[in-house]
Amino acid sequence: MTRIDHTTTDLLTRLREQRPLVQCLTNTVVSTFTANVLLAVGASPAMTDVPQEAGPFAQIADGMLINLGTPAPSQQLAMREAVAARSAAGLGWVLDPVAIGALRLRTDLAHDLTAYGPTVVRGNASEVLALARAGDGGRGTDSTVEADQAVPAAQRLAATTGGAVAVSGAVDELVDADRRVRSATGTPLLTQITGGGCALGAVLAAFLAVADEPLDAAVAGTACYTVAAQQAAQDAAGPGSFAVALLDRLAGLEPATLGEHLRLSEAEPAR
Amino acid sequence: MTRIDHTTTDLLTRLREQRPLVQCLTNTVVSTFTANVLLAVGASPAMTDVPQEAGPFAQIADGMLINLGTPAPSQQLAMREAVAARSAAGLGWVLDPVAIGALRLRTDLAHDLTAYGPTVVRGNASEVLALARAGDGGRGTDSTVEADQAVPAAQRLAATTGGAVAVSGAVDELVDADRRVRSATGTPLLTQITGGGCALGAVLAAFLAVADEPLDAAVAGTACYTVAAQQAAQDAAGPGSFAVALLDRLAGLEPATLGEHLRLSEAEPAR
Amino acid sequence: MTRIDHTTTDLLTRLREQRPLVQCLTNTVVSTFTANVLLAVGASPAMTDVPQEAGPFAQIADGMLINLGTPAPSQQLAMREAVAARSAAGLGWVLDPVAIGALRLRTDLAHDLTAYGPTVVRGNASEVLALARAGDGGRGTDSTVEADQAVPAAQRLAATTGGAVAVSGAVDELVDADRRVRSATGTPLLTQITGGGCALGAVLAAFLAVADEPLDAAVAGTACYTVAAQQAAQDAAGPGSFAVALLDRLAGLEPATLGEHLRLSEAEPAR
Repeated sequence: MTRIDHTTTDLLTRLREQRPLVQCLTNTVVSTFTANVLLAVGASPAMTDVPQEAGPFAQIADGMLINLGTPAPSQQLAMREAVAARSAAGLGWVLDPVAIGALRLRTDLAHDLTAYGPTVVRGNASEVLALARAGDGGRGTDSTVEADQAVPAAQRLAATTGGAVAVSGAVDELVDADRRVRSATGTPLLTQITGGGCALGAVLAAFLAVADEPLDAAVAGTACYTVAAQQAAQDAAGPGSFAVALLDRLAGLEPATLGEHLRLSEAEPAR
Repeated sequence: MTRIDHTTTDLLTRLREQRPLVQCLTNTVVSTFTANVLLAVGASPAMTDVPQEAGPFAQIADGMLINLGTPAPSQQLAMREAVAARSAAGLGWVLDPVAIGALRLRTDLAHDLTAYGPTVVRGNASEVLALARAGDGGRGTDSTVEADQAVPAAQRLAATTGGAVAVSGAVDELVDADRRVRSATGTPLLTQITGGGCALGAVLAAFLAVADEPLDAAVAGTACYTVAAQQAAQDAAGPGSFAVALLDRLAGLEPATLGEHLRLSEAEPAR
Repeated sequence: MTRIDHTTTDLLTRLREQRPLVQCLTNTVVSTFTANVLLAVGASPAMTDVPQEAGPFAQIADGMLINLGTPAPSQQLAMREAVAARSAAGLGWVLDPVAIGALRLRTDLAHDLTAYGPTVVRGNASEVLALARAGDGGRGTDSTVEADQAVPAAQRLAATTGGAVAVSGAVDELVDADRRVRSATGTPLLTQITGGGCALGAVLAAFLAVADEPLDAAVAGTACYTVAAQQAAQDAAGPGSFAVALLDRLAGLEPATLGEHLRLSEAEPAR
């Protein structure tokens, strides 16, 4: 096993032992699936996203996700409150800038929150380009470019935030300002269920709670999630049974055998 | 195959090719299932339902659904904004007047939105009667009358809106001001899962994005959805496995063999 | 069969015959699963939780659940409106004080609502202790103590409300001011899916609509739900397939054979 394979395996072990409490301020469409994914991987979800609760809770949760999929007015307030409190406490968090670019409200909100320095940003290539002010966004939640095309912008963004950026795609690209790791496990079925990408953001927040480096969390979370997804695709007769099998397979992931399934490779940054 | 069978098959082919982007302003209980149904049938869901986003997005989405199941204050604003924008742009949309009749707030909202002329209205018989001001609504989301009893009111409503009306029931009744089509596929299990009817509204919005006539969309969407449901019922051990199988079967629908399963019949309107 | 076994079996029969309409003001994460659980057990769900609708509907629904999992500002208003209307109408309702203790907003809200006398309170041990002002709450939705440790506090709470209290745990403790019943069916998988406990609150509300005594509803609802869960665990390959199987098994529960699976025991209260 390579060093990154070892780190990934160790982080899954640590996650299962520590069972991090992960606060999610996420969209209403994917909240159930996201909570179930967190439980399956071994974390404890807390979807605390209302004003006056989100801030205090952000100071004590082990991990935190902000996902901009359905930013209702009161949730916008809760997000600003949570990010300010989290940042003041010096704790890590994940930003998923869902479908920014075309929609002004969430694009402005994403830029405001990015100013606080998200420890990990997760998105598809179009979303990452838009957050790095290098593109106009995709079509709804569909990316219009491949993940590798967003790597230069993702690395500039990482240099600004001081964290990592996870660009989801057929091959996932995981970068910080200096390093670039590719993860080649997965299945197209992840794009055929709602929350396939959004739940990954929560998994990254769980791994961030137990990792030493943001990039390690981005790699380990992405690898565990996509290995389970690849296994689930073998069990599935379509997208409905795939979503069910994904939860079963995530719960069944074993650190002892995870290494056999990883397809991680580290390269020089393509600056 | 009859003409309506051919049109239905052609529209499924077109939907798969064009992958319409369907905006849903729907209730929080069914949003996940609705998004998964849209993905399974071949469309791209966007649950953009917050004020300031709903209106701009309504001008660019290929299809749009308004479902009144849980009309929170900010979503009410978003619905009014979206319908006004959609209407001004001359684009089609679907209204699902969930459980109107007994509840004043959503009943008034439904009538206000209906004044903009929904291209397709979908509901059970009690809901359609209440929207046509010919009944007091059902019991929660359960209809207290059969679909065929609502046909005269549905046709009067269609004459007012200039569109089509889909009355869901054991046999679905699909009408516009001049025509009446019955669709006899389906399963009672659709009433034993939440969102069984609501997700159909989103499917109609997807078909409306690729159809020439509102009634064609109402027929094709209803037929595809209920054929898949009938197949899923054969796979299921109960309502839980039925919901899973429905997504698998929707994704597996093939235009080439769809015609064998249709049970559509067109009759003179029962005025 | 013991008396409590007979009552439980009779109440399931009555529930299936009467199909009570159960209003749920619950958290956004579990609303879909909760509605599906209600449908599966034989009730009709109505997730009517918006201001101006929640109050009027509370006066006509057969059962009502208030769950504090994600109390957004407009839902808080709806909850206060619904509880006041329900109480004025002299009708029973269930309170699930999710994760109170650490979070001030929902803790204050829970105490305010408790002053109206919830007919049944359902929670884990930490939540019940916090509602009885005998503890500081758990860790997110995880309890930090066993159910039997909360029995004395639960009985004091029941003496105050005049109703019953259901403390969920490996063995469920169901009490009112005078009686204590233990239910030993279930599976740890219920804690590995989101809504495993929350949906039980809705089931209790459905049984309360057909029961003569609050404690009978608490016992019957808990027993039916956990028997189905225990059966579902045998069908499941993990938490994903467990949630699906739970719905199938709830729908398949037969009053005629339910008695064989019950593990209820009544004891003197441990005051």
